Amino acid sequence: MTDTELFELLETRLFTAVVGDVLDQMGLRRQFLPAGIAPLQPGMKIAGRAMPVLEADIFDDAPEAAAGPLSRKPFGLMLEALDDLRPGEIYVATGAALRYALWGELMATRATYLKAASAILDGYVRDAAGIEALGFPTFCRGVYAQDQGPRGKVIDYRCAIEIDGVRIQPGALLFGDREGVLVIPREAEAEAIRRAVDKAETETEVERAIRGGMSAAQALETFGVM
Amino acid sequence: MTDTELFELLETRLFTAVVGDVLDQMGLRRQFLPAGIAPLQPGMKIAGRAMPVLEADIFDDAPEAAAGPLSRKPFGLMLEALDDLRPGEIYVATGAALRYALWGELMATRATYLKAASAILDGYVRDAAGIEALGFPTFCRGVYAQDQGPRGKVIDYRCAIEIDGVRIQPGALLFGDREGVLVIPREAEAEAIRRAVDKAETETEVERAIRGGMSAAQALETFGVM
Amino acid sequence: MTDTELFELLETRLFTAVVGDVLDQMGLRRQFLPAGIAPLQPGMKIAGRAMPVLEADIFDDAPEAAAGPLSRKPFGLMLEALDDLRPGEIYVATGAALRYALWGELMATRATYLKAASAILDGYVRDAAGIEALGFPTFCRGVYAQDQGPRGKVIDYRCAIEIDGVRIQPGALLFGDREGVLVIPREAEAEAIRRAVDKAETETEVERAIRGGMSAAQALETFGVM
Repeated sequence: MTDTELFELLETRLFTAVVGDVLDQMGLRRQFLPAGIAPLQPGMKIAGRAMPVLEADIFDDAPEAAAGPLSRKPFGLMLEALDDLRPGEIYVATGAALRYALWGELMATRATYLKAASAILDGYVRDAAGIEALGFPTFCRGVYAQDQGPRGKVIDYRCAIEIDGVRIQPGALLFGDREGVLVIPREAEAEAIRRAVDKAETETEVERAIRGGMSAAQALETFGVM
Repeated sequence: MTDTELFELLETRLFTAVVGDVLDQMGLRRQFLPAGIAPLQPGMKIAGRAMPVLEADIFDDAPEAAAGPLSRKPFGLMLEALDDLRPGEIYVATGAALRYALWGELMATRATYLKAASAILDGYVRDAAGIEALGFPTFCRGVYAQDQGPRGKVIDYRCAIEIDGVRIQPGALLFGDREGVLVIPREAEAEAIRRAVDKAETETEVERAIRGGMSAAQALETFGVM
Repeated sequence: MTDTELFELLETRLFTAVVGDVLDQMGLRRQFLPAGIAPLQPGMKIAGRAMPVLEADIFDDAPEAAAGPLSRKPFGLMLEALDDLRPGEIYVATGAALRYALWGELMATRATYLKAASAILDGYVRDAAGIEALGFPTFCRGVYAQDQGPRGKVIDYRCAIEIDGVRIQPGALLFGDREGVLVIPREAEAEAIRRAVDKAETETEVERAIRGGMSAAQALETFGVM
């Protein structure tokens, strides 16, 4: 399966709930990003490859005497990270406090041009109306217009990151909908997708049986699912 | 008044605000569940009798050596609790950390079949789109697809529970709308409803007077309400 | 520019993002109220002059022996504060814990009659449906029907207040939209508005260049904005 086929299968036939259940069964139990990271609009659903971005808080812009290698560079490596996005990739950023926006309309415009799949921010975004008009799928902790400029910088990208203990390697498969974002490690992808498609079918059967009056206890006994 | 008539009166003519005010006047000051527990969709409004459910966090599924009476039973007593729902009852659960969903579409399907009134979760739910399609009124702390299976169990039901210090006895009257969920103790029901209907009428008069230019201070003096 | 013209310019041509950026450039870096304070409905946008209101939590109503000057007065000075609103003013309140509503439909009805511009609550509101029907723009931390009566009082108004370290003087210009509320000090108003109008125009040019394929790095170099 090509990545394009894989992303389409996830977006059209699966949900994070069923893929998460299968990862649980495979012993992968820390794959959901925190519940606070949600789509800007409930209908947004995404699949793509992680392009991890590491942010850091700052408290001054371009101070004369500061010694850090990025201290004079506005936004640090943010624009380089953005311009480096490839088709099907997801800009996924963490490391910043909840004080300012990590993403906005101009960034979404550039990402759309580069055919990136989505942005996932462990923080706020701004220009939400503009982003929604573009139709660029964005997951975040809410909207807040306070600018990143004098408050944060991107200090690295295409490096591994962690969000609340969930590790994201560059190229990891990310899958998100209204109910969460899953990080699916590359080595588990094929098996997880195959089993999730099967489980989705079983759930349709269980649904039908319960509508017909089967008890929950019987359903678990009969189908192994509830 | 039968329970059916009572629930209909609450759902069609009253709001939590006015009933809560009356409970305040009666000296019952800790009857609202926390503000974070809200309907999946703002228009959902519910009245019914509490069927309390007690959850506990777990950190392993079916461990060989664990000694607890429910350690080998998937979901603990969750399916028994669900299958025990009676018409007009509300599945109301607490005890779990905010790590996983306490309710989903299959459970809502079973509860609908049993003519239960609603589910109120001091935690997350999943399959929100499916639950909304069913039209099953659900109150919760948000949506999150992470499964309960290896993370939590129901350890008791039809027992008293507390949510943030608010005590819920089995059979207590629960009343919820967009602005909160009230627990109305059985012994206070009749008086609270009668006074709330009166107060709602007075508020309509105050509203009219203020629209006509009466000051807030005068309104309080004239009607005793503001 | 009259205040009416100023408010209209802000509401029709500007956004908090661009005004906040300009305040940053002017060295005013703590002007956004916290992200949790948001409009009841995403489309609500406001500009007006602050009428600050100071709340305090209480734990009993009209206790016989209490010695405080407001202890026997229901709601403290809330109704006086409300009745004192002037056209174009914003009732902006803080000081209360997140236990009860600081604003409701009757208050919004009175404020509408007085031609006040808006209410901004560092806390909950109730009667949200009624407020929305009135079309009175309201910013708050959410909806919760628990009454203020036996839980809080207004202890002062037309005094300076602070919300999360952001200072609000009486008469300060407040500007709010879906992405936050800005406090614009009087002495910075004229310059901030002038520069924000310029910046909004530049951003439209940048947007066009990026849509045409300009990189983010080039855009920052060319326009000084990203």
